[in-house]
Order: sequence, then C-alpha cells, then structure tokens
Amino acid sequence: MSFNSVLKIFLPHDKVFYILFEQVTTTLEQMAILLKEGVNQSQPDKRREIFRQIADQEHTNDDTTHKIFVELGQNFITPFDREDIHFLASTLDDIADFIHGSSKRMTMYKINLPDDGISKLCEVIYKATIELKRAVHELRYMRNLRVITEACIKINSLENQADDLYDTMVARLFEDEKDAVKVIKLKETLQSLETATDKCEDAANVLESIIIKYA
Amino acid sequence: MSFNSVLKIFLPHDKVFYILFEQVTTTLEQMAILLKEGVNQSQPDKRREIFRQIADQEHTNDDTTHKIFVELGQNFITPFDREDIHFLASTLDDIADFIHGSSKRMTMYKINLPDDGISKLCEVIYKATIELKRAVHELRYMRNLRVITEACIKINSLENQADDLYDTMVARLFEDEKDAVKVIKLKETLQSLETATDKCEDAANVLESIIIKYA
Amino acid sequence: MSFNSVLKIFLPHDKVFYILFEQVTTTLEQMAILLKEGVNQSQPDKRREIFRQIADQEHTNDDTTHKIFVELGQNFITPFDREDIHFLASTLDDIADFIHGSSKRMTMYKINLPDDGISKLCEVIYKATIELKRAVHELRYMRNLRVITEACIKINSLENQADDLYDTMVARLFEDEKDAVKVIKLKETLQSLETATDKCEDAANVLESIIIKYA
Repeated sequence: MSFNSVLKIFLPHDKVFYILFEQVTTTLEQMAILLKEGVNQSQPDKRREIFRQIADQEHTNDDTTHKIFVELGQNFITPFDREDIHFLASTLDDIADFIHGSSKRMTMYKINLPDDGISKLCEVIYKATIELKRAVHELRYMRNLRVITEACIKINSLENQADDLYDTMVARLFEDEKDAVKVIKLKETLQSLETATDKCEDAANVLESIIIKYA
Repeated sequence: MSFNSVLKIFLPHDKVFYILFEQVTTTLEQMAILLKEGVNQSQPDKRREIFRQIADQEHTNDDTTHKIFVELGQNFITPFDREDIHFLASTLDDIADFIHGSSKRMTMYKINLPDDGISKLCEVIYKATIELKRAVHELRYMRNLRVITEACIKINSLENQADDLYDTMVARLFEDEKDAVKVIKLKETLQSLETATDKCEDAANVLESIIIKYA
Repeated sequence: MSFNSVLKIFLPHDKVFYILFEQVTTTLEQMAILLKEGVNQSQPDKRREIFRQIADQEHTNDDTTHKIFVELGQNFITPFDREDIHFLASTLDDIADFIHGSSKRMTMYKINLPDDGISKLCEVIYKATIELKRAVHELRYMRNLRVITEACIKINSLENQADDLYDTMVARLFEDEKDAVKVIKLKETLQSLETATDKCEDAANVLESIIIKYA
C-alpha cells in the first residue's frame, strides 16, 4: 500500500492538496539551491552533475503536479476553488520549467560560468522560492494570513530586483561585449532566469487571490 | 433525466458554441497544414501563395471568434462557464495569430527555406492542432472525457518536444552561424513557432479545467 | 481628514473601486503622454527629465494599485467579481510597468532618439490608454455598455497596428543596420513598447469579460 493511499484513508480528503503543494514548493527550493550551486561552480564536470540533479528534480515535480491534477479530478471537495488549485499548480510547474530550462540553456550555449549577473539572479530566484514555500506551507492553517501576504509582497519586491538586475546586466553587456552572438546567448540566459522570477510573482498573485476570497 | 439534459432539449441555442469552436479548430488544422506546405516549398512564388492562404484563413478565424463573443453576449445559457468560453476562444485565436505571424515574419525576414528546424517545429504545430480538434469535437458529447484528457496530454508532450527542438536548433545556430543578424532572424522565427505550441498548451489547459468542473 | 476617508463616509463602499480605477487610467494616459513627449524630444537633458516624471507616475500608480488590493481585502461588497477587480488592477499595472520599463531601457541602451518607429509605437500606446480611460470611466454607470465594447474593439485594432508596426520596423532594421548589437538594442526597445499594447489588449479583454457577466 502506497504512502499516498495510506494518507487518503487517515486524512480528510482535501488535506492531500496541502501535502502535494508543500512537496512542490520544497522541490522548487531544492532546485533553486542546486541552480545557485551550479552557476557558482567553476568546474564544468561538477556543474554538469549538479544540473543533472536539477533535471531529476524537475521530473519529480512533474509527477507531483500530475498527482494534483488527478486528485482534482477525483475529489469533490477541495480546500479552495478548483480553478485556483489548477492555476497554482500550473504556475508552480512553470517555475520548475524555467529553473530547469535555464540550466539546460547555460550548458547548451556554453555560457562562461561563474558570471556575476547570473549568480545574482539565481540568488533572487532562491529567495523567491523560500517565500513561496513559506506562503504555501501556511495555506493549510490559514491562521495567519499575514504570513502569506508578507511573503507575496517580498516576492513582488524580489521580482522587481530581478527586473533591475536584468536591465543593468544587459546594458553592461551592450557596452562591453563586442561579439554579438555572445550578447544574444547571455541575454537569452539572463531573460530565462528573470522569467523564473516572473513566474514566482504569478504564483504569489494566485496565492493573494485565494486569500482575498477566503478573507 | 438531468437538469442539463432538459436544458439541451428546450434550449438548442447553446449548440451554436460547439459548432463555432469546431469551425475554429478545423480552420486551425488547415492553417497548420498550409504552414507545413509553405515552409517545405522551395519555390518562393508558390510559398508566397500558400502564405497568402494562411492570411485568408486567419481572417476567417477572426470572424468565427467574433461570432463566439457575440453569441456569448446574447445567450443566457451556455454549455460551460462563460469565462471558459471567453478564454478558450481567445487562446485558440492566439494560435491562429502565431501561425499567421510566423509565416509573415519568415517572408519579411527573408528566411532561407526549407530549413530543417523550422520544418520540424511546423510538424509539431500540425500534430498539436489535430489533437486540439479532436478534443474540441468531443466537447459536444462529453461522453468520453478520456478522449479530451488524452488529447491534452499529447499536446503537453508536443509542447515539450517543441521546446527541445527550439533549444537544440538555437544551440546549433550559435555554433554554426557567424552572422549575428542572421542568428537573430532565425531565432526570432523559431521562437514565434515555438510560441504557437505554447498557445496550444494554454488551450489544452482551458479544456482540462472545463472537464474538471464538469466531472 | 484625507480625501479618501471623506469618500468612504459619503459614498457607498463599492464606489471606491470606480474612483481608484479611474485614477489608474488617468495616470496611464499621463504616462503615455510623457512617453510620446520624451521619445520625440531630441535634447537628452530634457528627455531625461520627462522620463524621470514617468518614473514618478509609475510610483503613484503602484500606490493606487496597492489601495485597490487593500480595499478588496476589506470590502465585502464589490461592484463586480473580486477576481476581475484583481485581474484588471494587475493588468493595468502591467501597462504602467511596460511604459516605465521602455523609457528606462531607452536611456540605458542609449537609443538614438527621435526614431520614427519608436515614435509611431508610442502614439499607438497613447491612443490605447485614451480608450482604456474611456472604457473604465463608463464602468461606474454601466448605462452604455456600447461605449465599453467600442473602446475594447479599438484597443484590439490598435494592438494589431502595433504588431504590424513592430514587424515592419524589425524587418527594416534587419535590412539597414549592419551592427548586430544595435539591432538587438533597438529590437528589444520596440518589443517592450509593443508589449505595452499587448497589456492594453489584456485589460480590454478583462473589461469585455466583466461586461459579459453583467449583461
């Protein structure tokens, strides 16, 4: 008997959503830690191994996201609106996709690492995943909505930081780099990382709208 | 006899939505066929004629989409949530826009065709439109939700394929092409095609959320 | 006693949303006027001063948007669906972000201004903000839904114009400009302006879906 089946017997049915969303945000945080480690790693072999672990985690996350959709199809009672569960799961999955996609792109484009701008953006992504995890782990209790609101405000501010970092890095790139193909490669990588923080903001917006309905 | 069945007998008006959505996905499939033909056509004159037909179809599709919005304003009873009809129509319209936009861009940027990567991406778009048509044509009966679910799963997998194709093609482009402006042009074209498959995935997500509510 | 507190006493509570949304679209129109002025200004010092005012307005708009979210959390009764208020406020905020972001980018990338394509796109953005203001100011009365529908149709057509302008300008850029880094910079700027009109279309779509429910 699987762990999940046991859960289903002993737990009220809607609890399963909290558990699955908590799993997703825990995986996202781990992916962000690996991303930070990978981009700061100067040895290509070690970096490749770290990025391979990101791919594994992305796979794990796909499975968890799929489970959320299956539960959504089977459970009549859900802890919050079905559409919000659907949208939150999709948005969190997007974050995993962009973290994984960025790591893949850096390898394929043979980006020179460590790179100061990339490291800074990965730090912002990491901080945003911590806040997402905090907010999602509070959903279960809904005792302290302020925790969720504050996490969402921090994520919004982190997204602004990522925006500014992206703009500054690209402006610098335009000044310093004369090889246009290198400009394109690095700009694409920075953009992909910046989009990961956009997706964190999207997730924060879903969380905010869940709270608005609940309040 | 369910309330829904009674509605269906006394109010045939909602049938119009199925008919219009079926028209839209049939047009999308035709546009995707033309796109495939066009990018594989080596004679510029013939290709231009094929791309002109895509523009015509896009025009036809705009009219059908407009009809959906008009019906939405006039009909009190709709076969599924008004918001979902609105969102599905918008997303399907986006697919038409990106197929048409890609063909326009290839002409304006004077992209050298046929191109292996472009042909492969157009094949994926074509396959995704077939699945969309299959799913949308099942909506009317809702007898076999599995048909819709399976089509959506295939569209998701096709979008992943398009993603991988895009990444591989762009990495190859960075290796082989030394003319940076050519790199930009081709990358832009590949991106526009890849976004068409993203929009197919968005449409599949709406279809999935319609089923979730219905189930 | 602040203007807002007075409002709260004398007005039915849900009226506050109309006032705040009207403030947002008035600010957007002012930002679009400043953008037009800035990009047509040939003296860098004067342009910088104009762009600084855009940054100020964006700040003002952030505050108003925040007030909408606070009111949403406090008011039980809202003039239309809570989700629509949330989504409309987010989308209008995106427009402000892209107008401000475009002005910032032009300065950082040291874009040569005035530029014919940029001026034309800014004119389209300005026209779209006028229509948005018109539509939002009609929301309060809902007497003449046609005003809103027509504004939304115009915004859709303006977005198509912006699309065509973008495509033409980028194609011309590819022909004329041999410096690939300059191509990237200008293309990025044009894209950021074009996205501002996409966000206007997103806002028009929310307005349309509000009307659909209301009708």
